[in-house]
Amino acid sequence: MSTPLPVAVDAMGGDAAPRCVVEGALLAAERDQVSSMLVGDEAKIAEIDPHLSSHPLITIRHASEVVEMGAEPASSVRRMKDSSIVRAAEAVRDGEASALLSAGNTGAAMAASLLRIGRIKGVSRPAIAVPFPVLGSTRCSLLDCGANPDATPEMLVQFAQLGTVYARSRFGIESPRVAILTIGEEAGKGNALVKDALNLFENSDWAESCGANFVGNLEGNDLMAGKADVMITDGFTGNVVLKSLEGGVRIALDAIRDALGSTPAAAETAPVLDPILNPLFEILDPNLIGAAMLCGTKGVSVISHGSSSSDTLANAIRTTTEMAASSIVDDFRAVFAPK
Amino acid sequence: MSTPLPVAVDAMGGDAAPRCVVEGALLAAERDQVSSMLVGDEAKIAEIDPHLSSHPLITIRHASEVVEMGAEPASSVRRMKDSSIVRAAEAVRDGEASALLSAGNTGAAMAASLLRIGRIKGVSRPAIAVPFPVLGSTRCSLLDCGANPDATPEMLVQFAQLGTVYARSRFGIESPRVAILTIGEEAGKGNALVKDALNLFENSDWAESCGANFVGNLEGNDLMAGKADVMITDGFTGNVVLKSLEGGVRIALDAIRDALGSTPAAAETAPVLDPILNPLFEILDPNLIGAAMLCGTKGVSVISHGSSSSDTLANAIRTTTEMAASSIVDDFRAVFAPK
Repeated sequence: MSTPLPVAVDAMGGDAAPRCVVEGALLAAERDQVSSMLVGDEAKIAEIDPHLSSHPLITIRHASEVVEMGAEPASSVRRMKDSSIVRAAEAVRDGEASALLSAGNTGAAMAASLLRIGRIKGVSRPAIAVPFPVLGSTRCSLLDCGANPDATPEMLVQFAQLGTVYARSRFGIESPRVAILTIGEEAGKGNALVKDALNLFENSDWAESCGANFVGNLEGNDLMAGKADVMITDGFTGNVVLKSLEGGVRIALDAIRDALGSTPAAAETAPVLDPILNPLFEILDPNLIGAAMLCGTKGVSVISHGSSSSDTLANAIRTTTEMAASSIVDDFRAVFAPK
Repeated sequence: MSTPLPVAVDAMGGDAAPRCVVEGALLAAERDQVSSMLVGDEAKIAEIDPHLSSHPLITIRHASEVVEMGAEPASSVRRMKDSSIVRAAEAVRDGEASALLSAGNTGAAMAASLLRIGRIKGVSRPAIAVPFPVLGSTRCSLLDCGANPDATPEMLVQFAQLGTVYARSRFGIESPRVAILTIGEEAGKGNALVKDALNLFENSDWAESCGANFVGNLEGNDLMAGKADVMITDGFTGNVVLKSLEGGVRIALDAIRDALGSTPAAAETAPVLDPILNPLFEILDPNLIGAAMLCGTKGVSVISHGSSSSDTLANAIRTTTEMAASSIVDDFRAVFAPK
C-alpha cells in the first residue's frame, strides 16, 4: 500500500508563521495521523523543532521567498517563483502533494492555485466556498467569498454548480438546497446582477447538471438559519458578509466571555456554565469557520485565516486531507465536462 | 409656547400592528412625554385602548387602506392613496406632523417619503442610515442599507455627505470618520464600483463640503470595531450586511440566553450574571438597532423593524422626535444647496 501524499502547507503564511504552521502540522500528525509537506524557509522551519526533519509524517520543502500579507497577489506570484506559496502549488501540480493549504495572503494563494494548479476545463472562474455555522444542523456554504469581486449572472450559475458539488462532497448532502443571496425574498427584489441571474437560474438546466435543489431567493439573515445548504453571491458581497459576520460574532462572543470573568462572583459560575457554553462558543467561533476552499481548480486548494492558531491549522490540515481523499475534483470535472 | 408637532406613526405597519404600535405610542408618551399621531384604521386602533381618543399626547388620523409587508412598494403607494403610510407621509408634508415613523413595508415607507415628502434639492438618491453597535463607543452608521441596490460612484459620494451630517446630528460627532466598505484595505482592492468611487472620494471636495474626515477603505469586520463613524456602500451590499449581522448576532445571543437557562444549575447563576450580561445583550441586540433613517428627504423619515416590540417602537418614537427637533434636514440642505 502506498503512503497517502502529504498536504503542501505554506509554512510562511499566517500572522504567526512559521511557528504556528509547524505546530499545526505536528498537532495534525499526532492527533489525526495526517502528513504535511511544510514549504518555506528551511532554516526557519527547522529552528522551531530540531526533530522535525526526522518526523515520519512531516517533510520540509525549501522555498527562499515569501509573499507578504499586504503584497499585490498576482504580480507577486508571477515574480516570486521561489516563494513558499508558488512552490507549494507546484508540489500539487507535480503530484508530490495531495492538496494546497495556506493561511497567508489569500489573493496570492488564489493566484498560485490558478496559475500553477490550473482551472478545470469549463469552469470560467473558480470561487471560494466558506461554510457558515448553523446551530443544530449542517453548515451553509456561501460562494463566492472573495475570488471574483465583479461577477456576471453566468458566473453566479457556475458558483451554484461548484457549491452543490462542494456541499455534497464536504457534508454529504445528496441534493443540496441552493439559494441566491439577495435583499427581499420576492422575485422582483435585488440588484441588477441578482435579477438577471434569477432569470438564468430559472431558465437553464444547471440544477439537473449537478443535482441541486434550487430554492430561489434568500436574505442575509437566512445564512445561519438553516434554510439553505448553499447560498450564492458575487465575491464582493460574499467577502463583506464573511468579514462582517466574523467581526460581529467575534465581538459579541468576546464581550460575553469577558463579562463572564469580570467579577469574582461571575467567575465562580464557570464550573457550571463552561460545559454548557463552550460547545456553543466553539460552533459559533468565526475562527473555526477555518477552511475556505477554492472550488474549480484541478486540485484541492484551501485557504485558512491569517490569524489561525496552531489548533485551527491542525483542523484545516485534517479537513484538507479529507477533501483531497474525496472525489470532489473529479465531481467538479464531471459537471463541467463539455457534453 | 406652541406644543411640538407629533410624530406621524404608521399604526398599521409591523408584524403585530396595530397593537404594538399603539402600545409603543402609549409607552413613549408615558416615559418620554412625546406625542404621536397614529395613522390607520380608526376603529381597529381605538379598539386596543378605549381611552386613546382622550389621551393628551396621542391623536388618531384615519386611513382606510394598508400596504401589506409583501406588497410591491412603488405601485402600492401610487395606487393606495388612502393607505396609512401615504397619509402619514402627507401629514409630514402638510406640516401636521414633525416626522414619519413606520415599522411596515420598508419599500413603501421609502416610496411614500420620496413621493409625498420629497427629495432635498441636490440629493439625487436618499439613502438609509443604520447605526451599528460599537461596544464602549458611539455607533457606526452604515449607508446605504437598502434604498439603492444599484449605486454609482457619484451616489456613494452623496451617501458619504448624508452620513456625515447624520452622524453629527444624531451622535454629536463634529468631524465623523468616514470610510468606504470594501474587501481588503489596500487601494487596489474591491469591486469596480468601489475602485471608481475611491478615485472620486480622493479627488473631489466632498469632505470639506460637509466636514467629514475621510479615512479610506475599511472591511466588514471593522463595522462594529470602532474604526469609523460612517461607512459607505451600495444599498445591496448594505442591506445584505445588515440582515446577515442581525441574523448572526441574534442567533448567537439567543443560543447563549437559552443555554444560560438550560439546566437548573445554570439558571441559578442568573442573579449574578443578569446584571452583567443584560446590558451587553441590550447593546448588541439587533432589534435595538431599531431606527433606520432615510437621509435626504425634506422631512425626517424613520423606518423600524417589522418585528419591533412596543418597547422598541417607543424608543423609535423618541429618537424620531429628537431627530425632528434637530437641525438635520436644514443641515442636509446646506450641504447640497447649489453653490
